[in-house]
Amino acid sequence: MEAGSSSVSFPRVIIIGGGFGGIQLAKHLKDKEVQVLMLDRHNYHTFQPLLYQVATGGLEADSIAFPLRKIFKGQKNFIFRNAEVLSVIPERKAVETNIGEFYYDYLVIATGSDSNFFGSRELEHYTMPMKTIPESLNLRSMILQNLEESLIETDPVKKAALLNFVVTGGGPTGVELAGSLAELKRHVLRKDYPELNMDDMNIYLVEGSPVLLGPMSPQSQRSSCQFLEELGVKVMTDMRVSSYDGSKIVLSNGTEIVTKNVLWSAGVKGVVPGGIPMDRIVRGGRIKVDEYNRVSGYIDIFAIGDVASMSTEDYPNGHPGVAPVAMQQGKLLAENLVRIINRQEPVPFKYRDKGSMATIGRNRAVVDIGKIRFQGVFAWFVWMFVHLMSLVGFRNKLVVLVNWIWSYFSYDRGTRLIIRPFNRQSMTEDTQTK
Amino acid sequence: MEAGSSSVSFPRVIIIGGGFGGIQLAKHLKDKEVQVLMLDRHNYHTFQPLLYQVATGGLEADSIAFPLRKIFKGQKNFIFRNAEVLSVIPERKAVETNIGEFYYDYLVIATGSDSNFFGSRELEHYTMPMKTIPESLNLRSMILQNLEESLIETDPVKKAALLNFVVTGGGPTGVELAGSLAELKRHVLRKDYPELNMDDMNIYLVEGSPVLLGPMSPQSQRSSCQFLEELGVKVMTDMRVSSYDGSKIVLSNGTEIVTKNVLWSAGVKGVVPGGIPMDRIVRGGRIKVDEYNRVSGYIDIFAIGDVASMSTEDYPNGHPGVAPVAMQQGKLLAENLVRIINRQEPVPFKYRDKGSMATIGRNRAVVDIGKIRFQGVFAWFVWMFVHLMSLVGFRNKLVVLVNWIWSYFSYDRGTRLIIRPFNRQSMTEDTQTK
Repeated sequence: MEAGSSSVSFPRVIIIGGGFGGIQLAKHLKDKEVQVLMLDRHNYHTFQPLLYQVATGGLEADSIAFPLRKIFKGQKNFIFRNAEVLSVIPERKAVETNIGEFYYDYLVIATGSDSNFFGSRELEHYTMPMKTIPESLNLRSMILQNLEESLIETDPVKKAALLNFVVTGGGPTGVELAGSLAELKRHVLRKDYPELNMDDMNIYLVEGSPVLLGPMSPQSQRSSCQFLEELGVKVMTDMRVSSYDGSKIVLSNGTEIVTKNVLWSAGVKGVVPGGIPMDRIVRGGRIKVDEYNRVSGYIDIFAIGDVASMSTEDYPNGHPGVAPVAMQQGKLLAENLVRIINRQEPVPFKYRDKGSMATIGRNRAVVDIGKIRFQGVFAWFVWMFVHLMSLVGFRNKLVVLVNWIWSYFSYDRGTRLIIRPFNRQSMTEDTQTK
Repeated sequence: MEAGSSSVSFPRVIIIGGGFGGIQLAKHLKDKEVQVLMLDRHNYHTFQPLLYQVATGGLEADSIAFPLRKIFKGQKNFIFRNAEVLSVIPERKAVETNIGEFYYDYLVIATGSDSNFFGSRELEHYTMPMKTIPESLNLRSMILQNLEESLIETDPVKKAALLNFVVTGGGPTGVELAGSLAELKRHVLRKDYPELNMDDMNIYLVEGSPVLLGPMSPQSQRSSCQFLEELGVKVMTDMRVSSYDGSKIVLSNGTEIVTKNVLWSAGVKGVVPGGIPMDRIVRGGRIKVDEYNRVSGYIDIFAIGDVASMSTEDYPNGHPGVAPVAMQQGKLLAENLVRIINRQEPVPFKYRDKGSMATIGRNRAVVDIGKIRFQGVFAWFVWMFVHLMSLVGFRNKLVVLVNWIWSYFSYDRGTRLIIRPFNRQSMTEDTQTK
């Protein structure tokens, strides 16, 4: 079945995924002589950098997501289909999905990344990832449900397990999540749960390497660690997770922590659709591409963003899995596709690193812009401004700004609803069927 | 197990349900010599009058719900437990829940109402109710998913079924839902789905009686019907649902409409916990109470709001199931409980009707305040003001106001995400296990 084939007979570009890269690509193909078909299992774009605020009750899910159809409203050569891609069939230039097959002239894989449990079914089953809106909502619900449960738990060990939170991975996600949890505890939960002794609630951040925020500057690494400790987070570097059975986590140095709450942000891997030969998949589950984002061995299949691994002089192991890389690759690939269609030479990709930043809590952030590094209040305002401006849509910017201003002055969080009942199992299933 | 018994030894009032009635009751028991224990299956209060805006993409779920713990922050004699009440055991003055038993000196049932399918398992299984946040989110997702599905449906009958929407019940909920759907179609979906011929999308409103908004004035009834028809809603009065098998609805006059979307707002019934003798339950599944909201036959069990049926001179069949009744009963019962504890005569309840209103769409609402009746733009502003002021919490008021202003000028809706995948079955189960 060939949905959307009603459109003009220009060459068809199928984009799998409406993330940062896919959106830039589709936008820059506007008014070009191609037909664009975007496939995504969600009908919305997720602004992943703020997922942790949804998970910790700071923001509504809807204000960091944006309907994909709305982004491309009025773009004549754009078609969207809400579909789950099952596999790619290069021989037939086809993409197989849960709603049928679609045929492409050019295929762009922009599926991004998902949590990497490094092959451990145990960790995948028992820990809480946070890569999607449903996962963030589940995480929020779990945190609050376990607090409720701790109130009626009489067994001291079980109670401790409900109140111990272990965040794995000291990258931006882990750092921001741990910091946000610490502030939730300090400013909100203390008031919400007068019956609880908040000192019984512990937040651990476990990082395998010796430092937090690996790719950032030593100053930023030091400050982020210091900020977290000021907020009461127990930072454990040079430490790995050996095992977790759903109630007790064992670390590489033998330390054991009883906990029902292990928040998994220790790693990501590319989301590679079926049909891509294994020998094209390199480290981190990413697809090997050349400097034009072309998947090696194909002339009509491309990959951009987190799922793509482009090895260059500056980035021998591929580029960092961040939005700017995806956006710049998407923008350039739009140009290059037009060039290729017009039999012109494509332009090789060169990443312009605009710097990196992370926020730990109110008035606490770290920013590296080239050689310029600063931490603290100003960095925090810069972080907020950049993220606010990067949000898609005026309403989202407005609602997020309103929430942030309100939270800043009220020391409160607006959204701490347990949206629906679930147990860890159904939760895990849910996050698997997302 | 007796959670929360740590508190002072004043008589304990258990309130089942954190709705409009339960909240007023608990608030007015502040600083009184009682211990208040509130039980609710959700950790938040739901502002039901605006659920239809969540279902139709106008508002975020979080902005019409409010954490119960936050409402009573700092109220010393208040304890909350997130629990599902299984049954009441008057002999032992106990309430049995999924997290154990709680003992009361005085019990107040404020469980509100739920959708009434009048005994039809078929309707309960296939139609979409809208009484809770999860149900509204499911409804929103269903509407959008069926639109997506209609794009790839080749069978004309199946396609029509996906695009026909039948709202049952011409009360405020049905009228507001139908109007909101019509505006979603007119202003938003037309732009989101250029491939769809929006004239194929039909919205029917089916009402059993000869008029819409039964309890309101003839002017309001006429205007609401006229407003709906202006918006393209096919209003069918004097019409009942004979059957619905999930794909075709049959009406009392034999009319058949193929539809996958039947929105059920045709009736409500009280949510009566187990253990209350059947002979105390009257019409509409409500619990018979005297003028002091005391459940007949008990001295220590009370019921307020939608779940209570108090027959008075002005209201021989009980009071309307609206927020003001619940709130006034809650407030008075707080006083009366103190009186009863102090061996004083309780005061009989008298409902002060402040009027009623309903909105059909932008600039379209109807308001009856005693003998004063008006319809149209001014009524619409009054409706918005009253609802905004009734929302719990400053942040919610602010966020809702921002959304309303933005929607008014942009003719857009902010939140149209399919929050999670589901099929009609799992949906129904979800709404059953809520």
